[in-house]
Amino acid sequence: MSFDFTPFLRADLPPAAGRFGGYAEFNFVGGHSDAGSVPGDALVAALAKVVHRDGKLLANYGLSHGALGYLPLREYIATMLEDRTGMPTDPGEILITTGSLQGMDLVNEALLLPGDTVILEDVNYGGQLSRLRKLGVNYVGVEVDKGGMRMDALADVLAAQKAAGVTPKFIYTIPTVQNPSATVMGLPRRQQMLDLAREYGIPIFEDDCYADLLWEGERPQTIRSLDDQGQVIYCGSFSKTVAPGLRTGYLVADWAVLSRLMPLKTDGGCGALEQMALAEYCPDHYDAHVNALRQTLKAKAETMAAALEEYFGTTAEFEMPQGGIFIWVTLPAEVDTDRLTKAAGAAGVAINPGSEWAADASYGRRRLRICFAHPEKQQIRDGVARLAEVCHAEFGVPLRSANVER
Amino acid sequence: MSFDFTPFLRADLPPAAGRFGGYAEFNFVGGHSDAGSVPGDALVAALAKVVHRDGKLLANYGLSHGALGYLPLREYIATMLEDRTGMPTDPGEILITTGSLQGMDLVNEALLLPGDTVILEDVNYGGQLSRLRKLGVNYVGVEVDKGGMRMDALADVLAAQKAAGVTPKFIYTIPTVQNPSATVMGLPRRQQMLDLAREYGIPIFEDDCYADLLWEGERPQTIRSLDDQGQVIYCGSFSKTVAPGLRTGYLVADWAVLSRLMPLKTDGGCGALEQMALAEYCPDHYDAHVNALRQTLKAKAETMAAALEEYFGTTAEFEMPQGGIFIWVTLPAEVDTDRLTKAAGAAGVAINPGSEWAADASYGRRRLRICFAHPEKQQIRDGVARLAEVCHAEFGVPLRSANVER
Repeated sequence: MSFDFTPFLRADLPPAAGRFGGYAEFNFVGGHSDAGSVPGDALVAALAKVVHRDGKLLANYGLSHGALGYLPLREYIATMLEDRTGMPTDPGEILITTGSLQGMDLVNEALLLPGDTVILEDVNYGGQLSRLRKLGVNYVGVEVDKGGMRMDALADVLAAQKAAGVTPKFIYTIPTVQNPSATVMGLPRRQQMLDLAREYGIPIFEDDCYADLLWEGERPQTIRSLDDQGQVIYCGSFSKTVAPGLRTGYLVADWAVLSRLMPLKTDGGCGALEQMALAEYCPDHYDAHVNALRQTLKAKAETMAAALEEYFGTTAEFEMPQGGIFIWVTLPAEVDTDRLTKAAGAAGVAINPGSEWAADASYGRRRLRICFAHPEKQQIRDGVARLAEVCHAEFGVPLRSANVER
Repeated sequence: MSFDFTPFLRADLPPAAGRFGGYAEFNFVGGHSDAGSVPGDALVAALAKVVHRDGKLLANYGLSHGALGYLPLREYIATMLEDRTGMPTDPGEILITTGSLQGMDLVNEALLLPGDTVILEDVNYGGQLSRLRKLGVNYVGVEVDKGGMRMDALADVLAAQKAAGVTPKFIYTIPTVQNPSATVMGLPRRQQMLDLAREYGIPIFEDDCYADLLWEGERPQTIRSLDDQGQVIYCGSFSKTVAPGLRTGYLVADWAVLSRLMPLKTDGGCGALEQMALAEYCPDHYDAHVNALRQTLKAKAETMAAALEEYFGTTAEFEMPQGGIFIWVTLPAEVDTDRLTKAAGAAGVAINPGSEWAADASYGRRRLRICFAHPEKQQIRDGVARLAEVCHAEFGVPLRSANVER
């Protein structure tokens, strides 16, 4: 007889996790990276140097550098953010987190109560939408066009919220390689967003974890770099650029805010080996590494786009991303991507249904997010072919497959 | 002008963190380990092998082994727990956590609501007491003697709770090298605790993170090993045995419970490098490593005990610990260790005041926890000497110092 824990568990817990059954044969979900691009041996070589020099720090919580995390890594991040985004950053205002996800959880936990409102891009990271729902927070989507969140739409939403007597807790934005639209917000809109946040007196939470994965050119200045009043909380990550398995991200905020978030981080610090390895690896290698990774990802994006065109034809509408790891696809109105996700999953193809990636689930119903960073090119082609077969079987579209009229 | 975040932060947040100012000259707090015992180079050498073989897994969240964590590490933990504690464990019922602290947070979050009650040893880990207070949970202390939690006292507490109509959410226990009493609960009491938990239908949360640090003999069977009904949730850690900086712990529970805890772990997994390094290092090296570490810690404990005797004489009462990293000291009734902690801190000596380490703060008022794992032996002697000076200056005791009558 098993002890029944049910009466002891909180009644409002999420549903139980399922057993992990391995990844789908064609894995087009999640933030997985290109396996061949992970600089594993170089990270270990860097780590060996640090540990040989500084290994005794492992005997201390926080590596003797306090709760913010390993100081040399924070110093590198500060330099990198200034060089790449024009954002002067004090290493004392950087908190190392377990991926940017922990940063997101800390910000949400510190600011949000049930019934609160958050403003965000109307298509959005499913993990943030589900977090906000779990917290009982209302989110209001703002239309995204090819240039990211529309500032006229943001102004309308803010005015409407104010008219309704609501002060949103923050504007959550992914300005560079927005998830899932892959759009990039230009500098004028960034300035406009900050101006609107000023006008309405509302913080901005800027999530920048894809920003180093633009195919070409420099990443735009961060919104936080335009702000001299500490109104923007910023998060970034090495997950998408070096390796997701490292689980190393960071929050940047003025000390007045960061010092309030820190007591919510009760895990005794993040993994030391990742912090040490990155601190030693990045100064000499990060720039060249991300330059190479961008080209690899761009080539995979082109493979994915070509496969979508080949197997879906005009049935699949999408904008070619300027960077990142995913394409946001719109299918004809008769397609329900929740149903497609189930059927495709049964056929070994994992995709993200748009309903989970949109503030208005019904808007996402005919849309899907498809990630291309992890599968090899042949897998991308084969997987999209199979997805098209499944879609045709379920919904009658695409009409043709593999350039052959059905 | 700075943006004022105050109206946007939850009103019930903990106080702001302070800036880290470095450790005290004599650091007798925290779970820091012996720096010379950290097997840094060996961990890196192990990691190099795994990454060379399996480095591509870093491209995946969860290293392709799902949310429970890196499978080879879970397999090692399962083997180790069976060998060392007689606890057959399924690697599918082990969740890798960021230290045992994250495991504790997951259990607390899943089971506890404000107003709930937890039963625990009456002197206890300050971090768990502060977590429970933050959650608005009542805790009821059960007397600890030289053999750990007294089972007659536990029976009385459980009966009294039942009479009051209260069903405690769980019994939290650190049965082996209890924090801070350093006591070890023998097998008969473990069986009695399980029997009482059965009788009252209450779960047990067994925290075993010091269990491999007994100076001599085998660690006792875990309470969970006596339980065939899944009533015990168990946590362990490599922090105290390999290195705190690694932040690698684990939860063990039947799937019915573990699957409810897992969705609360929203960080996308724990650091991969630590998991890989430990999985490769431990099978060949863990046993010899902890055997050596135990002797090192025992020698430091003896140094600490000798220093306490030398500088405090009969003023300091304590039991010599059978393992672990701390000694629980009782001072005369006129001493207030909150005040002593402040004065000692100003003099460069960090200690844990007993009020933070006792369910009844007033019981802890004349007591303190003093950790000996991190400082070198001369630092232990010098730090205790300075502590005795401060104590004498503040409270007039000890009367003699350095064997010289004042």
